[in-house]
Amino acid sequence: MRILVVHGPNLQLLGKREPDIYGAKTLKQIDAEIRQRAKQLGVDVRTFQSNHEGEIVDKIGSTAGEYDAIIINPGAYTHTSIAIRDALAGTGIPAVEVHLSNTSAREEFRHRSLIAPVCKGTIAGFGSIGYVLALEALAKGE
Amino acid sequence: MRILVVHGPNLQLLGKREPDIYGAKTLKQIDAEIRQRAKQLGVDVRTFQSNHEGEIVDKIGSTAGEYDAIIINPGAYTHTSIAIRDALAGTGIPAVEVHLSNTSAREEFRHRSLIAPVCKGTIAGFGSIGYVLALEALAKGE
Amino acid sequence: MRILVVHGPNLQLLGKREPDIYGAKTLKQIDAEIRQRAKQLGVDVRTFQSNHEGEIVDKIGSTAGEYDAIIINPGAYTHTSIAIRDALAGTGIPAVEVHLSNTSAREEFRHRSLIAPVCKGTIAGFGSIGYVLALEALAKGE
Amino acid sequence: MRILVVHGPNLQLLGKREPDIYGAKTLKQIDAEIRQRAKQLGVDVRTFQSNHEGEIVDKIGSTAGEYDAIIINPGAYTHTSIAIRDALAGTGIPAVEVHLSNTSAREEFRHRSLIAPVCKGTIAGFGSIGYVLALEALAKGE
Amino acid sequence: MRILVVHGPNLQLLGKREPDIYGAKTLKQIDAEIRQRAKQLGVDVRTFQSNHEGEIVDKIGSTAGEYDAIIINPGAYTHTSIAIRDALAGTGIPAVEVHLSNTSAREEFRHRSLIAPVCKGTIAGFGSIGYVLALEALAKGE
Amino acid sequence: MRILVVHGPNLQLLGKREPDIYGAKTLKQIDAEIRQRAKQLGVDVRTFQSNHEGEIVDKIGSTAGEYDAIIINPGAYTHTSIAIRDALAGTGIPAVEVHLSNTSAREEFRHRSLIAPVCKGTIAGFGSIGYVLALEALAKGE
Amino acid sequence: MRILVVHGPNLQLLGKREPDIYGAKTLKQIDAEIRQRAKQLGVDVRTFQSNHEGEIVDKIGSTAGEYDAIIINPGAYTHTSIAIRDALAGTGIPAVEVHLSNTSAREEFRHRSLIAPVCKGTIAGFGSIGYVLALEALAKGE
Amino acid sequence: MRILVVHGPNLQLLGKREPDIYGAKTLKQIDAEIRQRAKQLGVDVRTFQSNHEGEIVDKIGSTAGEYDAIIINPGAYTHTSIAIRDALAGTGIPAVEVHLSNTSAREEFRHRSLIAPVCKGTIAGFGSIGYVLALEALAKGE
Amino acid sequence: MRILVVHGPNLQLLGKREPDIYGAKTLKQIDAEIRQRAKQLGVDVRTFQSNHEGEIVDKIGSTAGEYDAIIINPGAYTHTSIAIRDALAGTGIPAVEVHLSNTSAREEFRHRSLIAPVCKGTIAGFGSIGYVLALEALAKGE
Amino acid sequence: MRILVVHGPNLQLLGKREPDIYGAKTLKQIDAEIRQRAKQLGVDVRTFQSNHEGEIVDKIGSTAGEYDAIIINPGAYTHTSIAIRDALAGTGIPAVEVHLSNTSAREEFRHRSLIAPVCKGTIAGFGSIGYVLALEALAKGE
Amino acid sequence: MRILVVHGPNLQLLGKREPDIYGAKTLKQIDAEIRQRAKQLGVDVRTFQSNHEGEIVDKIGSTAGEYDAIIINPGAYTHTSIAIRDALAGTGIPAVEVHLSNTSAREEFRHRSLIAPVCKGTIAGFGSIGYVLALEALAKGE
Amino acid sequence: MRILVVHGPNLQLLGKREPDIYGAKTLKQIDAEIRQRAKQLGVDVRTFQSNHEGEIVDKIGSTAGEYDAIIINPGAYTHTSIAIRDALAGTGIPAVEVHLSNTSAREEFRHRSLIAPVCKGTIAGFGSIGYVLALEALAKGE
Repeated sequence: MRILVVHGPNLQLLGKREPDIYGAKTLKQIDAEIRQRAKQLGVDVRTFQSNHEGEIVDKIGSTAGEYDAIIINPGAYTHTSIAIRDALAGTGIPAVEVHLSNTSAREEFRHRSLIAPVCKGTIAGFGSIGYVLALEALAKGE
Repeated sequence: MRILVVHGPNLQLLGKREPDIYGAKTLKQIDAEIRQRAKQLGVDVRTFQSNHEGEIVDKIGSTAGEYDAIIINPGAYTHTSIAIRDALAGTGIPAVEVHLSNTSAREEFRHRSLIAPVCKGTIAGFGSIGYVLALEALAKGE
Repeated sequence: MRILVVHGPNLQLLGKREPDIYGAKTLKQIDAEIRQRAKQLGVDVRTFQSNHEGEIVDKIGSTAGEYDAIIINPGAYTHTSIAIRDALAGTGIPAVEVHLSNTSAREEFRHRSLIAPVCKGTIAGFGSIGYVLALEALAKGE
Repeated sequence: MRILVVHGPNLQLLGKREPDIYGAKTLKQIDAEIRQRAKQLGVDVRTFQSNHEGEIVDKIGSTAGEYDAIIINPGAYTHTSIAIRDALAGTGIPAVEVHLSNTSAREEFRHRSLIAPVCKGTIAGFGSIGYVLALEALAKGE
Repeated sequence: MRILVVHGPNLQLLGKREPDIYGAKTLKQIDAEIRQRAKQLGVDVRTFQSNHEGEIVDKIGSTAGEYDAIIINPGAYTHTSIAIRDALAGTGIPAVEVHLSNTSAREEFRHRSLIAPVCKGTIAGFGSIGYVLALEALAKGE
Repeated sequence: MRILVVHGPNLQLLGKREPDIYGAKTLKQIDAEIRQRAKQLGVDVRTFQSNHEGEIVDKIGSTAGEYDAIIINPGAYTHTSIAIRDALAGTGIPAVEVHLSNTSAREEFRHRSLIAPVCKGTIAGFGSIGYVLALEALAKGE
Repeated sequence: MRILVVHGPNLQLLGKREPDIYGAKTLKQIDAEIRQRAKQLGVDVRTFQSNHEGEIVDKIGSTAGEYDAIIINPGAYTHTSIAIRDALAGTGIPAVEVHLSNTSAREEFRHRSLIAPVCKGTIAGFGSIGYVLALEALAKGE
Repeated sequence: MRILVVHGPNLQLLGKREPDIYGAKTLKQIDAEIRQRAKQLGVDVRTFQSNHEGEIVDKIGSTAGEYDAIIINPGAYTHTSIAIRDALAGTGIPAVEVHLSNTSAREEFRHRSLIAPVCKGTIAGFGSIGYVLALEALAKGE
Repeated sequence: MRILVVHGPNLQLLGKREPDIYGAKTLKQIDAEIRQRAKQLGVDVRTFQSNHEGEIVDKIGSTAGEYDAIIINPGAYTHTSIAIRDALAGTGIPAVEVHLSNTSAREEFRHRSLIAPVCKGTIAGFGSIGYVLALEALAKGE
Repeated sequence: MRILVVHGPNLQLLGKREPDIYGAKTLKQIDAEIRQRAKQLGVDVRTFQSNHEGEIVDKIGSTAGEYDAIIINPGAYTHTSIAIRDALAGTGIPAVEVHLSNTSAREEFRHRSLIAPVCKGTIAGFGSIGYVLALEALAKGE
Repeated sequence: MRILVVHGPNLQLLGKREPDIYGAKTLKQIDAEIRQRAKQLGVDVRTFQSNHEGEIVDKIGSTAGEYDAIIINPGAYTHTSIAIRDALAGTGIPAVEVHLSNTSAREEFRHRSLIAPVCKGTIAGFGSIGYVLALEALAKGE
Repeated sequence: MRILVVHGPNLQLLGKREPDIYGAKTLKQIDAEIRQRAKQLGVDVRTFQSNHEGEIVDKIGSTAGEYDAIIINPGAYTHTSIAIRDALAGTGIPAVEVHLSNTSAREEFRHRSLIAPVCKGTIAGFGSIGYVLALEALAKGE
């Protein structure tokens, strides 16, 4: 099983940016946690971060045949990007949406996700553990 | 660690009711899965199902000192019950919201959760695995 | 043919409560009318009244194999109960929504029914005759 | 008792148009059913179909002294015609709104009826039986 | 100066229909009042009533070169007819909107006029006097 | 018959302010036109202008027993003043709303009048003639 | 004078639940305050608490002939229960709505009360004193 | 304890204006009731009425150091005046909002209060007793 | 291939009505252009214009077996006619929506088309060329 | 160059009122800063404060020929006063809107400015420096 | 005549992505069709695809003097990109919007185009033929 | 003091694009003005322009420790980019929003800024002077 993990805009700042909201771990540390758990689960995982909506669309568009599933934290693009939604719908492979913070408890404009309806499911509010739970959810399939 | 799992309205019908949406397992089977994983994690778990908003409010109101965390699938009350929201906010112990189906991909009125903003996080769309992931999220804390 | 008739909240007050809106007959009299017409149509009918959303959900959830159809006047829960809607959708047996008053001619918040979309049809505004018409509609099938 | 039955736009196509929504009977067959049941009830009934909002307004405007009640299936005009609403309100004789399909379960714009608030009641979702139920509701008065 | 007076749907019922809202005069009496005042003002006036949106559009579309101004009481079409609005905008001759009742004091859906923005002005709430005031407003020009 | 004419905010600037919208006549000239027509109609008229919502409320509040009717051009307060609305409703004497411009053809926020529902009627779009028409409407009563 | 005091959902937690919002007194202490003041006013008072919408509807439905007035703090049901509203409207005896906190200063969804329109009046924001003020308001009648 | 009582627009008309809504007492009588109860409670009270939003803002702006609390019936300004809201928030002394009528049971635009969120609490629907209850609420503090 | 071209309300005025919006060609000239291009494409074309919603519904309702496709410029009915929408959906033959002007760049109420969702596609903003493009689109099928 | 600086409601309280939002300087100090910078720029400046919407309208209405530009901090009237907007639009001289606080970061109802659309520009969030920047913007013209 | 054809996000996936919505042709095949028809029309055409909003803005921004017209299928950016809208408006050369699918018949959020109002016209629903029709529309000018 | 000036999409076209809205100066000229004033104020300034939301997010994300403040004209991204908002909030250094045009006086969709709430303040409508005023506002601090 090959899984692509996509980190959206501003996630390169993790650990530095508003740690009370997003936690104290850096993206590097989170990626290491993901890889470690993936190894345990026998899953091949690649991670990717970009602040560019277009690069994320490019990346998702090139997953066909390369990956079996996508874990995506679309960051701010969760609420504004129909292009990423369409890219995910177009791939035909299952995706899981992850958010570090509990977006339902934040500003009104963070309550609507354009991405969630084309995903298998959503995990939000558990910090970096969310990625690991997503890995497990995909590994256990159903 | 003592965890209360609350199943909301119509979940007693699982396995019989609209299996294409909610899956083929019965509530009994799901509760068994939860207990099995809880045992592995060294967590003391109790499950509770009710179709009555008031009984769920009663139950949550009596958790203080009895439980360390709540896992709740509020079912239809997710979208209509401020009373359950207030009960959760009033307990002061962490809660995790679980949904079997991906509510974001269903009717418009299922997109807003009154419960999510007072929970630590939400897991939706993974069928009965969602409860197990919630257990792990709480066990791993953060 | 076995039909369950469900009377929702405050209907126990019929004949006493706002008779200019709801008519002068008591619920007992209405149930008698329903039973009389059912007998003529060769239909086995049971009636049930509750002010508790949870009890109504319980009752509907237990109809599988017991009844062939449901006639429901959800009263105030028409506009607020997704739980009752989900219970009806979950039973898989046909339901008819009945209202004594013409809800479209009353307050704005009575114009939207959460129940109607999961019913076969709706009859509103004819007082207690509505239940009898619902019986006939079910008996004549189509 | 003299009753006018008004069929609104596109109902001349019944039996041909989208039979999964509107049923397989032609308007002629439905009118025959109505007349048959009217005879049993001792009611004098006339039926009228038009695709023209103006003709329907004309017709309703000329009912005073000619008819004792109106049964109307306003079709698409249900949601757009204040003129028909005003005509019904202006006649001063009771009207019953009938819909073949369960409009509450269809597109959002079919959920609001401009006609219902000036009618005695509404019957929706029972196919051609709806007209017969409307006849009975009027015959039984209350 | 040649003026066309257009009476919209249901106005043929004046005097009979809801006299507490629309007054006790018949349309014939109102037309006589209009003609009498027109004569005093040296204005050539024609009156026209139709319940058909299409006929009103036809009529307005044929006014070019025949009339110098239009007085229109669009009745229920005030709130629903973009076709009449476009017809008035297309004629290029000034129009005055008249309402017998004070539409602002009635149902919410009567508060928006699609016609008013393409008219010179509006007179509402003065019963049949409104037409006479409209004549004077046009005769006095400005 | 004693009539109070109330001119609202910024009307003291008439003739100077945006003449393409409000016309070239000064308020003094308009008041002279009003008085001249009032004399012809045998009506006793007083005019009053204020930019202060409070002064207009004071003035209307003191009309009881002093005036038989009010003509009011509430200017910008048309859309924002519930206080003036309440004052008019509290006097118990009839009022007519006048606007120089056709407010329906201007900005969206000028389309709703808080004042119109408590008036007998409205005249809009005829420049200073509107006041004269209002005088006539009141003199002719109905 | 016999008065029923109804406490809605989660109020059994008073003193423990979010004391910065709801105050430090327990429900028992508040009930004692109410009874003490009632005695001074010569009023017979009963108190009742339930987390169940249905039980509150039952209770209100049984007040006819038993009580002369109702004081109700509907808690979270203030914003979601048409059933309680209908029950109060159906009793025909006066009711006063009380809130411990100033609901207008809290979340948007707490600003609309479905209950207030069928009450005589509302008292909000004064903590447990609100019940005493309500008693006085009813005792002083008007 | 020194309390300022502010009466908003049109309240000078009390007793004359729409007595079925606002009661039969004059403002003078109400002020006398307030003063009498204040004396009993040992409170120093001043009353003030104005139809001018600006004067009310001036008055509230000058209360610092002069008064310990404000009781305000903002009348129509309840729904339109951010300036009065800001003045109250700026004083830093507690305020209580009073309404004679039950505003929740009246027109839609009277349901939102811009003032309530900056007050300690609200009392509505009890006629002139409301001011006395407000005095008591402030006197009892909490 | 037999194609019906339907021109909606006010299109009989083309060339005369607001030429800056709708162009300088008359409907006769446009129909000639359409017929000329149809001949080149080997398509049998009939054109029809009506200001009457009902006549357009009649016409569309009679196309079954007579035509293979419909090109329709619904004019103002684009935004208000569910009846025409239902007629098109009922025919079961493909339709193309054409607009002379770019409706997206005009008033807000012209942005929503009730007709477009039941058409194969839409062509807007190209003047009379739009009809020719629609012919080609249908001729080329796909 | 002669500039009028208008300070709206509650600004007389500056330095005392909510200093965390509005800063610690008094209006007197701010006016001194403005005058000092104006002198440097060779601009003749007058300042004016009022809590009365009407006085502000009066003042703006009298600027024609007296001033070349207006700097206005409309305070709470920013969001509610069409009268001040109309006064500014009516003067025909350029205006600049200034806010001490960043209104976009405060309550929802402070996000819409009725005044900004008739101004040359807006400066918000810089405390008293905003007035000085406005002076410079006007002095530098463009 | 030189025309730039811009393909927006995810269009590189054509033929592979959801062929029931977007058709079976690849972008390469579509570009070949466009070039072939352009040659017949004597038009010089360049095609460009990007998933990056910024690259599309760059490209449009560099068209001045290089191209005479733009054909753009903005894909998902149709509904979210004001930047592309502003780029098109800034070029001053005519643009045509093309959509492969009938966006009006899809999700609600695809019904509003931010791009259409700055284009000459729109062609939607005809698959790849839409580009060819756009070429013809531009070639025929008007 | 080191300040980064960020120019958003389409600003590279300044001087060429719609000069009646955006002015006649090129971006180069504006940058020169900014640098000149910065030198006078002793501020170290860098300017940056991009049409790519992702590049702007990258740039802002890399300012920590490099700059003391940001001046940003987000252009079209003002209304659509939560990613830029999050980047600014994440930097923890103060930002000022600048707009060349008065966005409040333009299309409805330009009235809401997603960026303003995370900035210190906003300056809009003064053309290129806005950047200079922003420099001064930051230099003067407060």
